Amino acid sequence: MAATRIEGEDELVGTFLAPLAAGFPGALGLKDDCAVLAPSPGCELVLKTDPVVAGVHFFADDDPADIAWKALAVNVSDLAAKGATPRIYLMALSLPEAPEREWMARFAEGLGAAQRAFGMHLAGGDTDRTPGHLSIAMTVIGEVPAGKMVRRAAAQAGDALYVSGTLGDSALGLALGLDAGLATRLGLTADEAAHAIGRYLRPAPRVALAEALRAHARAAMDLSDGLMKDLGRMCRGSGVGAHVGAVDLPLSPAMRRALDAEPGRIRDVVAAGDDYEILTAVPLAASAEFEAAAQRSGIPMTRIGEITSAREVFVLDAQGQPIEPGRSGWDHFQSR
Amino acid sequence: MAATRIEGEDELVGTFLAPLAAGFPGALGLKDDCAVLAPSPGCELVLKTDPVVAGVHFFADDDPADIAWKALAVNVSDLAAKGATPRIYLMALSLPEAPEREWMARFAEGLGAAQRAFGMHLAGGDTDRTPGHLSIAMTVIGEVPAGKMVRRAAAQAGDALYVSGTLGDSALGLALGLDAGLATRLGLTADEAAHAIGRYLRPAPRVALAEALRAHARAAMDLSDGLMKDLGRMCRGSGVGAHVGAVDLPLSPAMRRALDAEPGRIRDVVAAGDDYEILTAVPLAASAEFEAAAQRSGIPMTRIGEITSAREVFVLDAQGQPIEPGRSGWDHFQSR
Repeated sequence: MAATRIEGEDELVGTFLAPLAAGFPGALGLKDDCAVLAPSPGCELVLKTDPVVAGVHFFADDDPADIAWKALAVNVSDLAAKGATPRIYLMALSLPEAPEREWMARFAEGLGAAQRAFGMHLAGGDTDRTPGHLSIAMTVIGEVPAGKMVRRAAAQAGDALYVSGTLGDSALGLALGLDAGLATRLGLTADEAAHAIGRYLRPAPRVALAEALRAHARAAMDLSDGLMKDLGRMCRGSGVGAHVGAVDLPLSPAMRRALDAEPGRIRDVVAAGDDYEILTAVPLAASAEFEAAAQRSGIPMTRIGEITSAREVFVLDAQGQPIEPGRSGWDHFQSR
Repeated sequence: MAATRIEGEDELVGTFLAPLAAGFPGALGLKDDCAVLAPSPGCELVLKTDPVVAGVHFFADDDPADIAWKALAVNVSDLAAKGATPRIYLMALSLPEAPEREWMARFAEGLGAAQRAFGMHLAGGDTDRTPGHLSIAMTVIGEVPAGKMVRRAAAQAGDALYVSGTLGDSALGLALGLDAGLATRLGLTADEAAHAIGRYLRPAPRVALAEALRAHARAAMDLSDGLMKDLGRMCRGSGVGAHVGAVDLPLSPAMRRALDAEPGRIRDVVAAGDDYEILTAVPLAASAEFEAAAQRSGIPMTRIGEITSAREVFVLDAQGQPIEPGRSGWDHFQSR
């Protein structure tokens, strides 16, 4: 069957997107100009928008189901870090040309899988043709009980510092995707390589951790630009510093093996972006309760260091020497 | 003074964008990953996102103050049509390169003027570098008393049909901008040409009309894709039709003169996009009250026709003959 292109915005919205809005009455079937949201009583809304663009955050020829998943996941990751429960999202979809029906069906499939996994619905948005690259600007909205949003700039000296999951896998996955011989050179098994690539393509926002964070965390943020840069932001905003032991950083089997082969890849663990794990500072007195709550949520948390009053951030290697990252993390407007 | 480029996201956000968020505490000074919004008691939120892209909705070398204004205005126009009071917006700003400070200062100036005019604040967002063209995806949030959002698909046969302001000016303004000799050929005065170009560059969303719409309108939408197409959408959604008299369509002095010179430009009045006026269907019994309320708001409203039970939309010329638009309105994914 020859690939056919969709014929207009009405088909794009009616056939492929409206089913994703069926579970949210305020979307009005995507037939109005706006969506309407009745906040839950006693709740505040937590809001985030972060666009992804082909050639920056994914490759234009990636599986459209993965592109859609990632576009939503990177935003939902922020909601989770704030202790918020995801509710709805708006999508501004800019396409370089009318998409093929098959492409659009896969895209909607990935988006559907993501919204089911994160517990949310499409509420509205817009589709446009762009002279540039495919870009997707999601705006996600979650809820917290009033006054309970977990802040970034609230860490205090003495707090225990935790990170969820494992670090650096996404950077490793991207490197593996760009270099067909790398898996062999690093001695990775096929499963290990697939794990790292999967982490790059389909990050898993730690939605299940929201409740534990709301209950016990002093400060939290998601890691999107690399541990050192994001921890630096948390500490600068809070007027504190941090000590982190590199040997304490949680690593996947794939990353362990990669580090055995090329120890310099520790820089990806401490400074590469796209982790979408959660960094949190928890009062020492609450750390046991936090660990128990995190365990109940099924999300592995690792204690990686502590918040200090000296306003400097150190990641120390096994010999106690500070690791200098090759770069200070991801910045769209700094030259590298 | 040589033009200098901004040095990173921290400068971009801290110097140019944070001042725009100063009036909204939930923006947390743009220093957190998310914004937090406490809805007003008894209110629902009205949500919209519609990105603008260089080369489609504006020209990359337009005054950055105008670009910023338009990016916000086209979204706020939808809130006004729904009877909503604008509150906050999130901005996803994708730039092809680190902008010059002067460009960014002008952009922030236009955005500041727009948010003051519309009564809202910047709440959050993201800045990214894109391999494509400058694009700005605003997400705007307004409020209505619960249950009071004005729908699009609710018109009923017998309703009076109104439109705000004047139609076609923006299409004329775009044509004038693209063709330096056109103003002379059409016999426009300098003021008339400037008016039309201003309507293209800085559309004025009809925010002041929201209350009158909430109180009296049965259905409403903003005109972004041309009267015929948007009226067709309202009627299709409502299961009705409409009769509109072309002689009743409100025209600016500039457009009147352009029509005298080139009568075929009536197609721009009925079918071109970018009007950002409000189309509304009002129950006949409420029409006098609606007109009085609109007058108090200071927004001119013109009665242009009526909603009919026959499911067809006619725009009739002075001889009572249907006008066939050259195209059926703006669709990003239909070939023209």
